[in-house]
Amino acid sequence: MKILGIDPGFDRTGWGVISDDGGRLTYIACGCLQTDKNDNFSLRLQSVRDELALLIRTHAPDAVAVEHLFFQTNAKTAIKVGMARGVVLLAIADAGLPLVELTPNQVKQGTTGHGKADKKQVQEMVVRLLKLKETPKPDDAADALAIAIVGATIAHSRRS
Amino acid sequence: MKILGIDPGFDRTGWGVISDDGGRLTYIACGCLQTDKNDNFSLRLQSVRDELALLIRTHAPDAVAVEHLFFQTNAKTAIKVGMARGVVLLAIADAGLPLVELTPNQVKQGTTGHGKADKKQVQEMVVRLLKLKETPKPDDAADALAIAIVGATIAHSRRS
Repeated sequence: MKILGIDPGFDRTGWGVISDDGGRLTYIACGCLQTDKNDNFSLRLQSVRDELALLIRTHAPDAVAVEHLFFQTNAKTAIKVGMARGVVLLAIADAGLPLVELTPNQVKQGTTGHGKADKKQVQEMVVRLLKLKETPKPDDAADALAIAIVGATIAHSRRS
Repeated sequence: MKILGIDPGFDRTGWGVISDDGGRLTYIACGCLQTDKNDNFSLRLQSVRDELALLIRTHAPDAVAVEHLFFQTNAKTAIKVGMARGVVLLAIADAGLPLVELTPNQVKQGTTGHGKADKKQVQEMVVRLLKLKETPKPDDAADALAIAIVGATIAHSRRS
């Protein structure tokens, strides 16, 4: 099955696509959607929705995994990230795809085996598990691949 | 011109439609969109988007006014409200309508004349300005009418 992982943000939304063939993982693509800081919020939300819909049409994933954020930052930032997240969930629902929501701890645990791993350790496991030559850039894209890897395991277990 | 005012929330989204004919205000309709707490987030966001799109088609407003929230509550709540707000802004942009964003202070100032007015004072002015017989229920609907009233003034001034 093919999984799209999403690391949602307002300025940058990381994405990564992998296939999971009975536990055998293959890298397909990754990247980062950026919105123009000079545009107003509405245009930027449309841009996230449109680009995500295009990604879904292009890669035709069987499920989408999204990190569920618990913010330590201020409420103003949380509202902005929430706006992007709402539009991402809407685009996934509109595409009729199953959604897997993951906490940051689940992503760390699922890639490295421990929930307190740092970003670098998670990225090293992404490289190893997907047999990549180097760490995908930018960080948002690498994070999205980690989300896809753990999302694949959960989507698989739901199916069986 | 016809203005739709929106008081966005995740559980309840208040709405109110008024017409402003050169400063002469007329009440048209108001209400509250509620999402089912038993549904998942994605379904609830689709419901907000679909019902808002229907409201826009039904009332054909010339502009939409939305309160811009600055939350004092925790980040988890702010993310949820942000999700609803993102979907509301997207629906307005998709309808191609001008957006007027208002702070809570602007709504209080614009209806009562002072930015520290309480909810009850704002509601009393909504009743007086729209020549209603009683305060619209629920509160979210009355708030949305206040947003529409102040939004109308700003939308007017942008036009002229």
